[in-house]
Amino acid sequence: MSRRGRPLIALLTDFGARDWYVAALKGVILSRCPEAQLVDITHEVPPQDIVSGAFTLSAAAPWFPRGAVFVAVVDPGVGSSRALLAVLADGRYFVGPDNGVLSLSVAHAKRRRAIRLTNRRYWLAPLSRTFQGRDVMAPVAAYLAAGGSLIRLGVSTTAMEPLALPPVQQRGRVRIGHIVHIDAFGNAITNLPGTLLGTASRAMLRYQGQKVRVVSSYVEGRPRELIAVAGSLGLVELAIREGSAAWTYEAKRGDRVELQRG
Amino acid sequence: MSRRGRPLIALLTDFGARDWYVAALKGVILSRCPEAQLVDITHEVPPQDIVSGAFTLSAAAPWFPRGAVFVAVVDPGVGSSRALLAVLADGRYFVGPDNGVLSLSVAHAKRRRAIRLTNRRYWLAPLSRTFQGRDVMAPVAAYLAAGGSLIRLGVSTTAMEPLALPPVQQRGRVRIGHIVHIDAFGNAITNLPGTLLGTASRAMLRYQGQKVRVVSSYVEGRPRELIAVAGSLGLVELAIREGSAAWTYEAKRGDRVELQRG
Amino acid sequence: MSRRGRPLIALLTDFGARDWYVAALKGVILSRCPEAQLVDITHEVPPQDIVSGAFTLSAAAPWFPRGAVFVAVVDPGVGSSRALLAVLADGRYFVGPDNGVLSLSVAHAKRRRAIRLTNRRYWLAPLSRTFQGRDVMAPVAAYLAAGGSLIRLGVSTTAMEPLALPPVQQRGRVRIGHIVHIDAFGNAITNLPGTLLGTASRAMLRYQGQKVRVVSSYVEGRPRELIAVAGSLGLVELAIREGSAAWTYEAKRGDRVELQRG
Repeated sequence: MSRRGRPLIALLTDFGARDWYVAALKGVILSRCPEAQLVDITHEVPPQDIVSGAFTLSAAAPWFPRGAVFVAVVDPGVGSSRALLAVLADGRYFVGPDNGVLSLSVAHAKRRRAIRLTNRRYWLAPLSRTFQGRDVMAPVAAYLAAGGSLIRLGVSTTAMEPLALPPVQQRGRVRIGHIVHIDAFGNAITNLPGTLLGTASRAMLRYQGQKVRVVSSYVEGRPRELIAVAGSLGLVELAIREGSAAWTYEAKRGDRVELQRG
Repeated sequence: MSRRGRPLIALLTDFGARDWYVAALKGVILSRCPEAQLVDITHEVPPQDIVSGAFTLSAAAPWFPRGAVFVAVVDPGVGSSRALLAVLADGRYFVGPDNGVLSLSVAHAKRRRAIRLTNRRYWLAPLSRTFQGRDVMAPVAAYLAAGGSLIRLGVSTTAMEPLALPPVQQRGRVRIGHIVHIDAFGNAITNLPGTLLGTASRAMLRYQGQKVRVVSSYVEGRPRELIAVAGSLGLVELAIREGSAAWTYEAKRGDRVELQRG
Repeated sequence: MSRRGRPLIALLTDFGARDWYVAALKGVILSRCPEAQLVDITHEVPPQDIVSGAFTLSAAAPWFPRGAVFVAVVDPGVGSSRALLAVLADGRYFVGPDNGVLSLSVAHAKRRRAIRLTNRRYWLAPLSRTFQGRDVMAPVAAYLAAGGSLIRLGVSTTAMEPLALPPVQQRGRVRIGHIVHIDAFGNAITNLPGTLLGTASRAMLRYQGQKVRVVSSYVEGRPRELIAVAGSLGLVELAIREGSAAWTYEAKRGDRVELQRG
C-alpha cells in the first residue's frame, strides 16, 4: 500500500489519563517506529466496556486517512486464551483483542483480511501476562505503521468475535430502534439512520411514552425540550439544547426508541 | 509567510476526552495535511462556556510559534446563522465560530485580517448541521497549515462578535478589578496587571472584605493564607500555597478585587 | 549521542487537562525545537504529589527509546531556592526540579550525569517566579532534544534530593513490603518484586490480616476475590478482577503487605 505522509497510529483504551499505561504503549511504538504520528482517540472508555470502545472506535476511524493503524486495548480477557488480531479493512489497520472491540469497525468493509497474532518475533520479550497492549499490540502496530507485512504476523482467520449494534426493527410504518451510546454532552445516540427522519415535519419519534419533536439542528430546540436530530454520525440522536438528555431522562444504552414516518 | 518546521495545529474544544469528536477533527486534519503536528490545548472547556474558552486560548496562543493554526470549537450556535471565521493575527491563524471565542486572542493584534468562511470548496461534503468543527473548521485549518491562502476561504470582514475582559477601573489610588478565570489549582486570576503590584511590600489587595498579602511567589504563603501574586500570565492571582483559593473562598468569575498601591 | 528518528520529548505534570499550562510548555518547546515529537505521560499527577509523579515517571521512561527527553513538572517549591536539574541517565534525559521527582528514574542508572541549571542563556526572559516549567524546563528540554550539550546548561552536581521506594524487609521466610502506588483501575502496586512469587501455588500473601491468593493473570480471579499477581512493572500487585482492590479494601500508599514463600 502506498502511504502519503507519516505513519499514523491512533490509540483507544480504557486506561484513563492518570497512569503510565498509555505512555508505555507510546514508548514501545516510538522505539520501533520513530516516525509515527500518534493520535489519542480516547483513553476514557469505561473500564472493560467493550461495546462502548467498539462504538467509539467505529465512529472515529472513518475520518482518518487510509494507511492509518488503530490500536484498541479494551481487554478484560488479558491473560486468557482470547486471540489477538490485526485486521486490514478497506485500507486501514486495526489491532486489538478478538473480543468484539474491532468488530463494528471492520464488519462492513468491502475488503477485509484478518490475522490472528501468533508470530512472537514481532512482540516484546519477555511477555507479561497482564499487559499485552504494551507487549504485543503496540509493537505489532509499530511494525504495520512502518510498512510491515500483515501476513507475517500470524495466521489468517475468518472467524471473529461478533459484536453488532442491535438491528432496527420494522412494524408497519414504525421503526423500532435503541440507544447505542451516550456521549459526553448527554446526547443519546440511537441506531436509527438519520435519513429516516426525512423532512423533519413529517417524522415523529417516541421515547419513554413521550413524543419527541424532530428538528434539523440543536439550536432549534426550546429550553429543556427533548429533541431528535440527525447527528454527525448519520444516526438519530436525542438531545436537549444546552442541556443533557441522558441526565434529564436517565437515558441508557439499550433504551427503546420508536420512529414513525409521516 | 515563511514557516520553520512542520505545520502546527493547536486545538481547543469543549468536547471532553471521552468521545470520538476530537479524534474526528484530527482524522480530518491529518487526511488533508498529513505532515501536521497536532497539539491539544484543552478539550475540557466547560460545555459551551465561550468566555472560558476565549480566556484559555488567549493564554496559550502567545507561547506558540508564528505560523501556528489554532482551532477553537466552543460552538453553542452550531446550525444557526452565526458565521465561522479564520483570522490571521500577528502571524498566527485562528479558526472558530464568530461568537467571541477568538476575540481575546486577536483583539490586540498589530496586524489582523479576518475572513468569514463562505467557500465550500474547502469544506467536507456533505455538510452536517451538528458538527461544523469537523466539517468546516478542521479542513480549513488543515488547508491553512498546509500553506493555503487565507483570502480564498471567504470574504473579508471587519466586524467580529466582541468579547473582552472587564476593564480595570480606577478610583483615586484604588484600582478595581475582577476575577476572570479560576484555574485547575484553584488560583483565581484577575484582570489586574501584575505590574501594578510593584514592590510587594507597598501594595495592598482587598477581596471579600479581607486584606490580602502581596508576595512574589507561592512558596512565600503561610499555611491557609490567601495571597496575591503576579502570575505567569502577567496578571494578579489570588492563591493559597498548597491549597485552593477558589474552593476556600468560593471565588468565582466576576468577583470584585481591589488594589491599593502604597 | 546519535539519535534515530525525531527528537522526542515526554511530559509529566500535575497541571491537569483543563488549563493552558501544558499548552504553554508545548508552545515553548515547539518554538525552539519545531521538529520535536511530544508525548504526554500524564498531567493528572495529584497536585504536588512528588512521590506519585516520581513513580509514574519511572514506570513510563524505560519504554521510551534512548535519546528521549523527559520533563517532570511537579514543583511545589517553584520560586524557592530548590535547584532545577537536567540529568542524563543511560542515554535518556530528565529535566525537573531537584525535589525527588526524577530520583526513581535515574537512581539505578549505570551511567549518569547531573547538571544544576544555572545558565540563563537557555531560559526564557523575562523569567517568572511562578512558572519555571514554562520558563526554564521547557526551553532546556527543547535545547537537549535539538541536540544541545548537557554541560552547557549549568554546573555538574552529584547531590540530588533522594527519594526511594521503601526497601523490602526480610524476617525469616517472610518479606515485608508496602503498597507504593494505586493505579486508575484500583490495582494496588507493591514494592515486592514479582519474581518472589515464583510458582504461584507455593507463595502466600497477606494483606489486612487476610490471605491473598497468588495467580498469574487477572482473569484467574473469582468474582470479588482479592488476588495477587506479578504485574506489568515486574512488581506484585493486589487486584480484583473486573473490580477495584483499592476501593474495596480502602488500600492506600504505605499499607503493609507480607509475602511468604512456600
